[in-house]
Amino acid sequence: MREASVKTGFQASVLTLFPEMFPGPLGMSLAGRALEAGVWSLEAVDIRDYATDRHRSVDDTPSGGGAGMVMRADVVARAVDAVHQAGQPLIYLSPRGKPLTQGRVRELAAGPGVTLLCGRFEGLDQRVIEARVMEEISLGDFILSGGEPAALALLDAVIRLLPGVMGKEVSGEDESFEDGLLEYPQYTRPQVFEGREIPEVLTSGDHGRIKAWRRAQAEEATKLRRPDLWEKFLTISRKDSRKSD
Amino acid sequence: MREASVKTGFQASVLTLFPEMFPGPLGMSLAGRALEAGVWSLEAVDIRDYATDRHRSVDDTPSGGGAGMVMRADVVARAVDAVHQAGQPLIYLSPRGKPLTQGRVRELAAGPGVTLLCGRFEGLDQRVIEARVMEEISLGDFILSGGEPAALALLDAVIRLLPGVMGKEVSGEDESFEDGLLEYPQYTRPQVFEGREIPEVLTSGDHGRIKAWRRAQAEEATKLRRPDLWEKFLTISRKDSRKSD
Repeated sequence: MREASVKTGFQASVLTLFPEMFPGPLGMSLAGRALEAGVWSLEAVDIRDYATDRHRSVDDTPSGGGAGMVMRADVVARAVDAVHQAGQPLIYLSPRGKPLTQGRVRELAAGPGVTLLCGRFEGLDQRVIEARVMEEISLGDFILSGGEPAALALLDAVIRLLPGVMGKEVSGEDESFEDGLLEYPQYTRPQVFEGREIPEVLTSGDHGRIKAWRRAQAEEATKLRRPDLWEKFLTISRKDSRKSD
Repeated sequence: MREASVKTGFQASVLTLFPEMFPGPLGMSLAGRALEAGVWSLEAVDIRDYATDRHRSVDDTPSGGGAGMVMRADVVARAVDAVHQAGQPLIYLSPRGKPLTQGRVRELAAGPGVTLLCGRFEGLDQRVIEARVMEEISLGDFILSGGEPAALALLDAVIRLLPGVMGKEVSGEDESFEDGLLEYPQYTRPQVFEGREIPEVLTSGDHGRIKAWRRAQAEEATKLRRPDLWEKFLTISRKDSRKSD
């Protein structure tokens, strides 16, 4: 492990076979401005630099047979040991991982940084996942060509929550998942679009009615679109109401 | 809607305020080679080009108050109408959407292409979502700074399934979610890594035992890590066995 550096800000390290993919989209817009301002820093490390043979091999055929190639435990261990800083989460992006949630995103954003390991091919030798006690995180129930698009999405979600990144105008408190519900629908000018009007309540100026309407819409959308989230929401609400009894 | 062009291959159109984010990582590795080979094509369209005022405004304050800005229905409708081709799915990437699954990825990859709309700010005026009958898809239960990282991930997942992209060596059949289970753990050389050996069965050469072991490991991992997937898997297995009765 590397000695703690004097850098401030959130430190992201990405271990990948495609370091040229970073910062990519994270070098633009909100995340890009925050990167320039030093709110976060990025180190993209080529795993191939830690290969030990002259062919710079990083993978080999799967033990027991099967299609594809598997990333070698020894090469990945060398790369992780050179880059990962003590005290930072070490995350392996994998479809076998726990699905990423906004709760985990918030925890990561509150920490000093993160080391992300991007797999390719048929995955990573299980022994290095266990030996380095990696946290396995999945973006969702679909398969990517590698961990890189997942790392970009995870970092994007984290960076927008870092202090000063979103600015005053966006609070992050009214959003989907922040209270366990999907967000209510939004409307803006023009007043009439292709014959469709903005719901009357929103232009009423009655803040109590607006709040109640939005809450009802958020609950309705969650019930209809995400029965799984709605079940979780009800369970938590019940626990909360029992606590306050 | 645009007339069907003579292009072959999978046609991806992305409507975004940050066209410079594309192809980004999709211009490299597997997806990049497939793009060069014409297996897929990409058109990144700046929504701002469809603004109607001289300030090129694309957003306005939310009706009913609240933080942030909302993308205007009229501007987005003009952009969609100029770009979206009949017969292609029109997907709005939004945390209010249905979570992306490998099943939907497979369906998209089997089709002629896709038009992806990336939101920013507090979202999109609900009326254009309804008027253009957009399919809303979410990457997962976390919030991104915009739809762009989600579009990159969705396209990556789709492109790897296009004919000729993965090559013979990767079948895609043994992977997580393809049979409703997480994938079994993988191992490769060296035989011993930091005192840890490859499980004996994998080097036994007994293909029946290897298959059974891998299946048991996949079931065990799914049960332990993803009780939600395991429940679904059991429900589907029960239905299948009833059908074959």
